[in-house]
Amino acid sequence: MSLDQVLAHIDADQDAALDRLMELLRIQSISTDSAYAQHCDAAADWLIADLNSLGFDASKRETPGHPMVVAHAQGTGTHALFYGHYDVQPIDPIELWDNPPFEPAVETTPNGKVIRGRGSSDDKGQLMTFLEACRAWKTVTGSLPTKVSILFEGEEESGSPSLIPFMEANKDELKSDITLICDTGMVTPTTPSIVTMLRGLVGQQVTITGPSKDLHSGMFGGLARNPIRVLNAALAALHDDTGAVTLNGFYDGVPELPEQVAKQWENLDWSADSFLGDVNLSVPAGEQGRSGLEQIWSRPTCDVNGIWGGYTGEGSKTVIPSQAHAKISFRLVGTQDPQKIREAFQQHIRDHLPADCTAEFVDYGAGPASSMEIDHPAFEAARGALSDEWETEGVYVGCGGSIPIAGHFQNIIGTQSMLIGFGQDDDQIHSPNEKYDLTSFHKGIRSWARILDALAD
Amino acid sequence: MSLDQVLAHIDADQDAALDRLMELLRIQSISTDSAYAQHCDAAADWLIADLNSLGFDASKRETPGHPMVVAHAQGTGTHALFYGHYDVQPIDPIELWDNPPFEPAVETTPNGKVIRGRGSSDDKGQLMTFLEACRAWKTVTGSLPTKVSILFEGEEESGSPSLIPFMEANKDELKSDITLICDTGMVTPTTPSIVTMLRGLVGQQVTITGPSKDLHSGMFGGLARNPIRVLNAALAALHDDTGAVTLNGFYDGVPELPEQVAKQWENLDWSADSFLGDVNLSVPAGEQGRSGLEQIWSRPTCDVNGIWGGYTGEGSKTVIPSQAHAKISFRLVGTQDPQKIREAFQQHIRDHLPADCTAEFVDYGAGPASSMEIDHPAFEAARGALSDEWETEGVYVGCGGSIPIAGHFQNIIGTQSMLIGFGQDDDQIHSPNEKYDLTSFHKGIRSWARILDALAD
Repeated sequence: MSLDQVLAHIDADQDAALDRLMELLRIQSISTDSAYAQHCDAAADWLIADLNSLGFDASKRETPGHPMVVAHAQGTGTHALFYGHYDVQPIDPIELWDNPPFEPAVETTPNGKVIRGRGSSDDKGQLMTFLEACRAWKTVTGSLPTKVSILFEGEEESGSPSLIPFMEANKDELKSDITLICDTGMVTPTTPSIVTMLRGLVGQQVTITGPSKDLHSGMFGGLARNPIRVLNAALAALHDDTGAVTLNGFYDGVPELPEQVAKQWENLDWSADSFLGDVNLSVPAGEQGRSGLEQIWSRPTCDVNGIWGGYTGEGSKTVIPSQAHAKISFRLVGTQDPQKIREAFQQHIRDHLPADCTAEFVDYGAGPASSMEIDHPAFEAARGALSDEWETEGVYVGCGGSIPIAGHFQNIIGTQSMLIGFGQDDDQIHSPNEKYDLTSFHKGIRSWARILDALAD
Repeated sequence: MSLDQVLAHIDADQDAALDRLMELLRIQSISTDSAYAQHCDAAADWLIADLNSLGFDASKRETPGHPMVVAHAQGTGTHALFYGHYDVQPIDPIELWDNPPFEPAVETTPNGKVIRGRGSSDDKGQLMTFLEACRAWKTVTGSLPTKVSILFEGEEESGSPSLIPFMEANKDELKSDITLICDTGMVTPTTPSIVTMLRGLVGQQVTITGPSKDLHSGMFGGLARNPIRVLNAALAALHDDTGAVTLNGFYDGVPELPEQVAKQWENLDWSADSFLGDVNLSVPAGEQGRSGLEQIWSRPTCDVNGIWGGYTGEGSKTVIPSQAHAKISFRLVGTQDPQKIREAFQQHIRDHLPADCTAEFVDYGAGPASSMEIDHPAFEAARGALSDEWETEGVYVGCGGSIPIAGHFQNIIGTQSMLIGFGQDDDQIHSPNEKYDLTSFHKGIRSWARILDALAD
């Protein structure tokens, strides 16, 4: 059977696969800093050459920023489009790296061997798992088991400014049956995970103005309205005693968790105690009666991300400030409408405003939640393949953060995305000493080899 | 009758009195900036020379900072100690001055003539009202109608570091029957005012720590405790719906207003509407059922003077911060105990703390309220004299801010202070274009002449 031969080849080819990844990691493709533009270009060229060597028809597509790489391979069966990004985060603070970030090395740690270096996990190591799986199939059988296209982006770490225009302009070329995205992690170190729920986000800044200038609290204190107090009261009233958000209509469109998914989550070797314990917390702070995973994956939230007003320097100053400010964000799920929630928040603030205060708002990004339609047969096929590889039942999980790419594929291309990644919580992506477990890399390659096989069926 | 002659002399001597004030105003006695130390010294010397010319026995007393001026005149009757300060505030921002701050000039404004220049109101113009009154008595009658001593300080605008040690070391010399302080204003432009209540102050900083580091609100939002929200809730709970402070025992020692004073305040030509209207407010924000003047003078308060936490830069950042901070201050009245209120506040914060958060406190200054014992006959004598001069009933008023000097005289010397000043709300003390109304200066001199006469009776 071909799959077994392919997996055996992957095992035999481990060292060479690692060498190839090291080569890619040495390219300093920091997208946000224009001084590294030619390195980004070099990473795109490196990938194109590698893809062409695998029999893909790969090309560099210029954008106003860093280039896209698009590649197509011949094939039959389910047409899968794989997405990854070749750019990496900046390396500051450089002094906190134990080794130079672009001189990757394999290190032995108490938890096993890791590949250390910028981009090892996010996202070069992850995208190479897919390329190596393709290479193994190609080497062993001369072709891929299913039809594959590829899109690599070079601006993911700098806000993806070219992505939507590029997707819209190349809609037809990017059309496929399913999207594969390898930029996420595993819910536990040994549980393969397919992210199917991504929370949306609405951001808002509010400024409350009371007196026309800063006042002396001796002369005015007691009689004059303090906008910090107004803001405190309004923000404190955003949640009730059970941890629920009080905004009018906030829970419209928030679905209950499907029973199948709820059961998977219950069985996970995951505990809120240890998740919180890692950051020195112990008390779940969200809605009462919801599990920890629900609180971070499938329930909407409201958080104050920043607050400021009055005197914030050293010592004391008896001022009643003219203004107080806060930045608030909401994580959305299901079909919650970002615009309605923005309006409900603004109304909440106005409802808490004394007659002599005013509120001004600055709108930040608004995006709805994405939820994948897991009844597409590719989902169960991939979950089965992952379960086989990891010998642990694969699970559909949520992701508290927002990964806009999956929503773009839904909205622009019309495809569902399977977000399958092999990162671990301790990979330190975006931070010094980023690493990727050698196990993630090796079993990641084997996982994709199995998924490609399963998609062909 | 001598008083009439003295008042007539004051009227005739107006221009010369103004010239003398102008001379003192030209001395650049900024106490907080050591570059001006010799100017402070020069101001002390100028006053000593003037006092000696009036028959005082005046001397310069060195301190670790700027010198004190102490002077005594022979006399009988009530022994009054007059306090003022010869130092002035810095002049920044200099570009906002219409004329050089140390080149004083008389200007005609829609509200009458004013003396423009740094220190014109705070406090050189005010202290000279007393000296000119003494000069007039001396010139007309050859002596003062009552026994007078004088203490001039040169560090009032820089925290009075030498004052308490100096008062303690010279307790006996400074002993008198009553203290006169001319460093306050009139409650309305035509209502002579004796400040008899000074609010105290307790300051406190609080830092609430939740997670051990800043968290990503996508990954943790919902489950992880946000210290900004904890702080908001705790601060919002400091007041109830009626505007009262909820701290345990907060109102212990808060007296009701004496009926006589309450009646005076009711009859004042003062309105909260116009006081608040000047700073674009309209709704009294303090305790329900208390008048505007009670709210700023005789009721205790709690204000948040500063708050900060999380991301406060441009744009949005989806962070759950590790810490949130606030600076809180309480204005105290009656016999409220600053230490007890500090403890009650800390307990309030702890009571609102989830089990996995901690609170740290920084203590700022604590001083109780001062309330003068107005049954000393000097008070009614002075109030009568002021009423005669201004042809408007003099009133006992409160002062929302803290003027520590009156408390020091009570605690160290054992005397009550009469805070009588002729400043107006629009004098712009501590700001560019400081001024003192010529009427304040002239009628201030006449007021002291009358008060000296009244104290002799």
